Parts: sequence; C-alpha cells; structure tokens
Amino acid sequence: MNQVVLGVDPGSLNTGFGVISAEGDRLTPLAHGRISLPSRSPLEVRLCQIYDRLKELILEYRPHTLALEEIFLAANVKTAFTLGQVRGVVLLAATQALLPVHLYPPLVVKKAVVGYGRASKSQVKLMVEKLLGLRVTNHHAADALAVGVCHLFQHRLLKYYS
Amino acid sequence: MNQVVLGVDPGSLNTGFGVISAEGDRLTPLAHGRISLPSRSPLEVRLCQIYDRLKELILEYRPHTLALEEIFLAANVKTAFTLGQVRGVVLLAATQALLPVHLYPPLVVKKAVVGYGRASKSQVKLMVEKLLGLRVTNHHAADALAVGVCHLFQHRLLKYYS
Repeated sequence: MNQVVLGVDPGSLNTGFGVISAEGDRLTPLAHGRISLPSRSPLEVRLCQIYDRLKELILEYRPHTLALEEIFLAANVKTAFTLGQVRGVVLLAATQALLPVHLYPPLVVKKAVVGYGRASKSQVKLMVEKLLGLRVTNHHAADALAVGVCHLFQHRLLKYYS
Repeated sequence: MNQVVLGVDPGSLNTGFGVISAEGDRLTPLAHGRISLPSRSPLEVRLCQIYDRLKELILEYRPHTLALEEIFLAANVKTAFTLGQVRGVVLLAATQALLPVHLYPPLVVKKAVVGYGRASKSQVKLMVEKLLGLRVTNHHAADALAVGVCHLFQHRLLKYYS
C-alpha cells in the first residue's frame, strides 16, 4: 500500500506545497509548487486562495496525511499572529478532508532529510532534489517537500521499530 | 434599509458571537452566544467547529458585515499564534460569504459602547445589555455584541459626517 503525504510550508505571501507518494523504499513526487499571493491583496483574500488551492490539491491527489513544520515561536508576536492565521486555514482544509495533521520541528525535518539538524536551506533543497529525483525551483516548495519526506521517513521508522 | 452585523470575539476555547440589526436609531439583537469547545479537542477540530458554526450563523442571519476586535499584540508569541489560527478561520468564513471584515481596536470598541476607552469587561457587558435591551450570560457574547454595536455606531457616524 502506498502512502501519500501533502507537505505544506505555510506563509502569508508564499505557501509551499509538495505531494509525495511512498511505496516501500520508493519515493515518488506527485506535485510541488508554491501558492504565491500579492502583498497588496488583503490577508483574508489570501487566506481564501490558500484554502481553495489546498482543497484542490487534496481532491486531486487524495493524500493520507498533511505534514507541517512546527513553527519556530521565537519569531515576533506580529509574525506569529500572521502565520497563525495562515496555519489556521491549512489545518481547517486538512481536517475537513479528514486528514490527520503531523507536525515536525524544523530540526527534525533537517535531520531527517540532510542528516544534520542545522543544515542550510540550500542543503535541504539539494537533498530533497536528490531523494526525489527532481529539480525544485523555489525554497517554499523545497521546504514543503522536505517536511513530507520527513513524515514518510518517520513513518517508515515507526513501522520498522514496532 | 437595515444593516446587519455579525460581531465575533475569537478565542481557541470560547468564541463569542452576536448578530445585531440596525435600522435608523433602532438596534435589534438577533442572536448571541458563544461557541465553547473542550480544551481536550485538538485545535484543528476546534477550528472546524468554529468555522462551521459561523457559516451557519451567516447563512441564517445574512449579515452585511463581520466585525472583529483588532487583537492586542502585546500578548505573548504563543497566544498570538493560537489566536491567529482562530482568526484565520473566522476571516475565511466571512470572506467566502463575501462579507467585508471590519477591525476595531479594543479602545475604540469600549469608547463607542461605554464612552470610555478603559472601561472594564463588566461595564461593557452592562452597556451592551442596556443598549440592546437584553441579558447576556457571558463575557464572550458581550464582547462580540460590543464590537458589533461599535461597528454600527461608526457606520452611522460616517453617514452623518459624509
């Protein structure tokens, strides 16, 4: 049985996404990209667009799970509030489609993908490209694919150990 | 023509709501209450319930506008992030229904309702009850009605001055 994960990197201007299927040891990227929204749009309009696009992706690729990075809360209050609003609609889209949501701290994602918790964004992108055999044109999509890969690795490990 | 506003006081455990209709000087409360959610439910499930209930209220009362308090961002980062997630789904529900969203700073709400920007929660509740001729059983609903009243007052003022 294959496992399909939708990885998301939420942002108020750029939300990365990556859909990956895993069957045994084989990882197949199904889709990736970013939802780019103009900063001149009101936030509520951007929230609608993120929600609609995620709903479309869920309908098209029928993922089993949504994976997200646990947000690094040392950011300032204003950023946390804005990111919270985006994450709210991401969680809503997932839960309405009955997808369980898995959260991974950035350090765990980097460790899973690069083998090193303090890896740079470029290293993460490079390893994602290598693991999935594709070229990723932006960091938002790469980060979303990375958290998807992390989820699939963790999932396999859990299966090995249980 | 009457104006109907849906005031909302978002919270991750208690979200207050109040629907008020204004025709000339007459304010009529149509509905108020709170969406109370158990803290043992995962946040994403609570977000779904808040969203669903707001959608129902919008469908039932057909408000012209949604009014919210501008959140006081001196709160800590974790709180801002949680509140952000709730506000994200509130904005989504409103914008999907094509409702314009109006934000008012707490000081402006208190000033509009009580006439004094540093009024206590009890004073706000008392004035809301007096203005609308009803009894409100909890502060979440009272705060939601207050922001609704504030919007209607501002709206009338704008009409007077323009």
